[in-house]
Amino acid sequence: MKTQLKRIGILTGGGDCPGLNAVIRSIAKPAMTEYGATVIGILDGFEGFVEGRMRELTPKDVAGIINVGGTILGTSNKGNPFMFPVETPKGIEILDYSSHAIHNYKDWKLDALIAIGGDGTMHIVDRFTELGLNMIGVPKTIDNDLAATDVTFGYHSAVAVATEALDRLQTTASAHHRVMVVEVMGRYAGWIALGAGIAGSADVILIPEIPFKWERVFEHVLLRSKRGNRFSIVCVAEGAKPAEGELVVKELDKKRTDPIRLGGIGELVGKKIEEETGLETRTVVLGHILRGGSPTAYDRILSTQYGYKALQLAAEGKFGYMVSLKGTEVTAVPVKEAILSLRTVPLDSQLIACARAVGTCLGD
Amino acid sequence: MKTQLKRIGILTGGGDCPGLNAVIRSIAKPAMTEYGATVIGILDGFEGFVEGRMRELTPKDVAGIINVGGTILGTSNKGNPFMFPVETPKGIEILDYSSHAIHNYKDWKLDALIAIGGDGTMHIVDRFTELGLNMIGVPKTIDNDLAATDVTFGYHSAVAVATEALDRLQTTASAHHRVMVVEVMGRYAGWIALGAGIAGSADVILIPEIPFKWERVFEHVLLRSKRGNRFSIVCVAEGAKPAEGELVVKELDKKRTDPIRLGGIGELVGKKIEEETGLETRTVVLGHILRGGSPTAYDRILSTQYGYKALQLAAEGKFGYMVSLKGTEVTAVPVKEAILSLRTVPLDSQLIACARAVGTCLGD
Amino acid sequence: MKTQLKRIGILTGGGDCPGLNAVIRSIAKPAMTEYGATVIGILDGFEGFVEGRMRELTPKDVAGIINVGGTILGTSNKGNPFMFPVETPKGIEILDYSSHAIHNYKDWKLDALIAIGGDGTMHIVDRFTELGLNMIGVPKTIDNDLAATDVTFGYHSAVAVATEALDRLQTTASAHHRVMVVEVMGRYAGWIALGAGIAGSADVILIPEIPFKWERVFEHVLLRSKRGNRFSIVCVAEGAKPAEGELVVKELDKKRTDPIRLGGIGELVGKKIEEETGLETRTVVLGHILRGGSPTAYDRILSTQYGYKALQLAAEGKFGYMVSLKGTEVTAVPVKEAILSLRTVPLDSQLIACARAVGTCLGD
Amino acid sequence: MKTQLKRIGILTGGGDCPGLNAVIRSIAKPAMTEYGATVIGILDGFEGFVEGRMRELTPKDVAGIINVGGTILGTSNKGNPFMFPVETPKGIEILDYSSHAIHNYKDWKLDALIAIGGDGTMHIVDRFTELGLNMIGVPKTIDNDLAATDVTFGYHSAVAVATEALDRLQTTASAHHRVMVVEVMGRYAGWIALGAGIAGSADVILIPEIPFKWERVFEHVLLRSKRGNRFSIVCVAEGAKPAEGELVVKELDKKRTDPIRLGGIGELVGKKIEEETGLETRTVVLGHILRGGSPTAYDRILSTQYGYKALQLAAEGKFGYMVSLKGTEVTAVPVKEAILSLRTVPLDSQLIACARAVGTCLGD
Repeated sequence: MKTQLKRIGILTGGGDCPGLNAVIRSIAKPAMTEYGATVIGILDGFEGFVEGRMRELTPKDVAGIINVGGTILGTSNKGNPFMFPVETPKGIEILDYSSHAIHNYKDWKLDALIAIGGDGTMHIVDRFTELGLNMIGVPKTIDNDLAATDVTFGYHSAVAVATEALDRLQTTASAHHRVMVVEVMGRYAGWIALGAGIAGSADVILIPEIPFKWERVFEHVLLRSKRGNRFSIVCVAEGAKPAEGELVVKELDKKRTDPIRLGGIGELVGKKIEEETGLETRTVVLGHILRGGSPTAYDRILSTQYGYKALQLAAEGKFGYMVSLKGTEVTAVPVKEAILSLRTVPLDSQLIACARAVGTCLGD
Repeated sequence: MKTQLKRIGILTGGGDCPGLNAVIRSIAKPAMTEYGATVIGILDGFEGFVEGRMRELTPKDVAGIINVGGTILGTSNKGNPFMFPVETPKGIEILDYSSHAIHNYKDWKLDALIAIGGDGTMHIVDRFTELGLNMIGVPKTIDNDLAATDVTFGYHSAVAVATEALDRLQTTASAHHRVMVVEVMGRYAGWIALGAGIAGSADVILIPEIPFKWERVFEHVLLRSKRGNRFSIVCVAEGAKPAEGELVVKELDKKRTDPIRLGGIGELVGKKIEEETGLETRTVVLGHILRGGSPTAYDRILSTQYGYKALQLAAEGKFGYMVSLKGTEVTAVPVKEAILSLRTVPLDSQLIACARAVGTCLGD
Repeated sequence: MKTQLKRIGILTGGGDCPGLNAVIRSIAKPAMTEYGATVIGILDGFEGFVEGRMRELTPKDVAGIINVGGTILGTSNKGNPFMFPVETPKGIEILDYSSHAIHNYKDWKLDALIAIGGDGTMHIVDRFTELGLNMIGVPKTIDNDLAATDVTFGYHSAVAVATEALDRLQTTASAHHRVMVVEVMGRYAGWIALGAGIAGSADVILIPEIPFKWERVFEHVLLRSKRGNRFSIVCVAEGAKPAEGELVVKELDKKRTDPIRLGGIGELVGKKIEEETGLETRTVVLGHILRGGSPTAYDRILSTQYGYKALQLAAEGKFGYMVSLKGTEVTAVPVKEAILSLRTVPLDSQLIACARAVGTCLGD
Repeated sequence: MKTQLKRIGILTGGGDCPGLNAVIRSIAKPAMTEYGATVIGILDGFEGFVEGRMRELTPKDVAGIINVGGTILGTSNKGNPFMFPVETPKGIEILDYSSHAIHNYKDWKLDALIAIGGDGTMHIVDRFTELGLNMIGVPKTIDNDLAATDVTFGYHSAVAVATEALDRLQTTASAHHRVMVVEVMGRYAGWIALGAGIAGSADVILIPEIPFKWERVFEHVLLRSKRGNRFSIVCVAEGAKPAEGELVVKELDKKRTDPIRLGGIGELVGKKIEEETGLETRTVVLGHILRGGSPTAYDRILSTQYGYKALQLAAEGKFGYMVSLKGTEVTAVPVKEAILSLRTVPLDSQLIACARAVGTCLGD
């Protein structure tokens, strides 16, 4: 039994994502059996880290969870110890509470802490690494917008759910000769819209990376209609924007600040298409359904690989690193590489070329 | 081979619904083989009936479609020949075009016409029966709100899709300690919300039949939170209404007249819960996804029984009847019975008692 | 709060079945909250009842289990206290250990015991009732072969899984121009084969209720081939038997006594079809997959109704009764009615007529 | 519009595989629109190529097929023109009929032929390339055993289906305290068993690459039982073999020559475990279900990329090449590279290390 690691912490940061429990399991099981380590679960993400909500995980806690959605550790939106919302006599103030987290790290005698999260989490991993904590990152986000890895876990599960919805809407659009607009998540990157749009055979795909022209969208839908395809499916990323019309964009951005809001760009696209083409149009927003539920087999395998690799990095003392898929190999990259920039869809991507090749309009 | 039926027509009216193709198939296949009849498909519902868009169906047309969503015949919202929207020099006028339909019925020498649809379709079946056409109805609606049958086909498929979404949202609500509000279809009847809410273990179910009290909803969610269940699932029927607050109701009704609208009662419930309880809340609207896609095995079997029974009624000359499930038997009822009233959830229903028994709040 | 029930036991007998946990939950939750009762879970079915393996269930035990397959209580094949296999110096002896069970019932001060199971379980419920225990039965079996109820829970889930497999095999049979033989469970009753066969559009359905003629099966498959349908799907119940050929039947019965056996009637049908028609044939046996996994929405709702009704019967002192679906109502029948005979598919069943109507061969 | 390609052929060889239609679509659609080419579908694989069964594909043929299982072109087991089974007066003779295929290629004036298939197909692509035909290969096999590409399409769909079955069996194994043995496809390579075994949380995974020791399997299952995990899941590749016991291996190999056979290594493993450990054991063989049905979103995207890349290679005149995934890029490799060897699971694979890390026994 290897002995470097005595006590290892795990936390899950940011939004829910299929595969979180699979990662936790593949860190915790070998940590206990292969390394004889104690595994400390930090509850509710960085909020729990700041507030010291932690407990030891048992083998039973991590058994039978590979296919369970959500995270047994919980997560939180109060996700940044360096900008922590605190109730004070003056109201909610944003304070640097990282020292509380560091205190808890030491108090619980952690030798390493593996943080599973997206872009925001990796920034925090980086800062705590600079402050001397032994941090490892695991790239998670359904949006697939993290740099320095081929793919994040959760992405393919979200695409699978969105594709199933597109399959359903194909039949109903066809029966009614309707245009169906489907908004999927993706505020800054169009990976989900592009992946699900290709897999679900969308006729139009609108992504943030390609500001779209209204006319192109209308033309394409009308052309299909003229050719006898009396229905169309339009797959819109949450962050898609028209090329022109700053006003419109601002209005949308305002809506986006309201988290319960419904009816962003998807609703707007639906309304405009109906008005301009005269074709009956309906909009569906696939919000939080994309985040929940059991991960696909692909994501369970990837998550298992990510978790075990993160543990190995911790055992090797490679702190400040993030696990990463490169080709068929799970490897490690400095977390600083991962946070240099958001990974958006390159305009010369094969996926975009493919979508165009099968006749999809990308709005440009 | 039986010989009463020479030429039989089929049309699908109203909104899309899983199982339509299964019904078409189980009318057309035995019509051709058992009765040696010619089967005429009327395209795009009653609109196609008025406009004479019809064609003979071949065995190939109806092969392999039992599990395909939508309808191979198409449907239309211009669904009423007695109140048909016609472009005239004065603009769109609503005219009685039933004579066109009757003309087409005779022109195509139909011996009988089977109309698959919901409440609206059954009203039309009734009127054409009175005008002397040989009509048979098949009860279809995901809303399950047709009288005179235990269940309509499509209902269980819609519940299955909604339940799967609730399963997904359970995990993500739990991970984030959030309240998740899910709006499902059901403008006048709460069957989908009640069925999916029970199957998907919703903590609150709001249906049109039980005007809800805001305080009860807030209390229930807060009580769960106090007991350590830091998440709740609220399943809301599209037509749910608060008991008090006429203003609110009118505002919602206005929204409902806009078919592309997003954010009806579901969004309102979400906003109010967040405001009044302080718990983070998100809303998801499961719109047209509930209508599309492959029917469940249950609905495929029921649809197959319905279609064949409708054909048998046509052969027996039992016109003006609708097929109907009573217990385990598919039988026939006068279509007039089916249109007397909408079938809403009875307040003394076992389902409601069951929901309460497992701890669900129904808002009263 | 009602007070008749102080301590209520639950056990799950016989084979695994989707919906067991949903029933347990809808007994236990209202038992605790509505009746203030203590709920005792008996582990591993009647084996645990004999051996006294019981424990009190907590609200947490029964939370979040409505969609979980299996049974949190476990079950056992050593299922009959009246014929209990006991290791003695002389080897395994079959003894009447019902007194041990009765002792445990009294020792744990049970006021009532709800047993969830199939035909075997209902026989035991009946006998213990005669011996004075307060027993209630809940009808469970994927085979749907229990008398005195319209349907057992678990049946529609098994049909759903089998139908999904048939959907998959349709495409592969078609690509390869093959005959695909699919064996499903159903030793004495053909409900699963008939339901899944209709829903999955099987070309031949063989069930125990209709001893089949080999020639008819060969002819049907060849006829399809001649008409250009170069593939066929044959859905065979485990207990299907050819009309002639006693030898064959005996050979099959011998195989059936070996529980790990593969290759019963399904394999035989596959071999014969390939030999006699010259068409490439493959066989798939859908064994225990049909029993496992999350129940369908339909079965979750039915199970919830069954569980709560069973609790109400216990509270009313209606012992010796089994809950039962009649139409849309869950009611109660004397358990003696349920065990009079196995519920097989009636030869004049509408389902059989429907299957024939859409062109399916039933082997006769 | 590009003009190099006037007439392009497509055929699907070997066993059925999810994604075939998606590849056909993404060749044919851009071939017609982007290149203005005529697309010729060759029916029933190489058998149709030899026998001249071809027809022009229309846009309608390839619309709406991305999510449909099987292949619209059909396939055949008489898959090798160089060793073609021909009925002669002397009986079936195996003859070189490649000249027939070449004749048909010329007769239909093909400029290029894209063959979608596995190892066998790629060998034929290579030989026809040497004989001067303009061939391109697309790597297809659920087994994932083709060299020179990171992954074949169809693999992840097969793993998804197998994983879903393992999920189901987990619950039923747990309820019954049983050992469940699941045999999956994979005669020479263990990719499916390993992928599904990890994703489905199997306790034992047996693959052809690691000849297993019976004792290890028994020990592992018993150890789990002793620790209170009274069930185990054993995932066995069709081609798994025990390290010792040549006799056993030969017996199994004989069974494998019979294509309708049931009960190969999976049944043997089940029997032995029950005999040696005394634990109740059941075996399920997931045969052809793994091949059929709609591809996963992942496979739809990959197939779309493969098809379009193959068309581009044809347009560039890169004949004798196979498309291939390397990392996130679809590229081209000489087909000769792909047929040098079968791609089995490397013993130092991260997947194997991962499986061991989470406690899975690999039989060694």
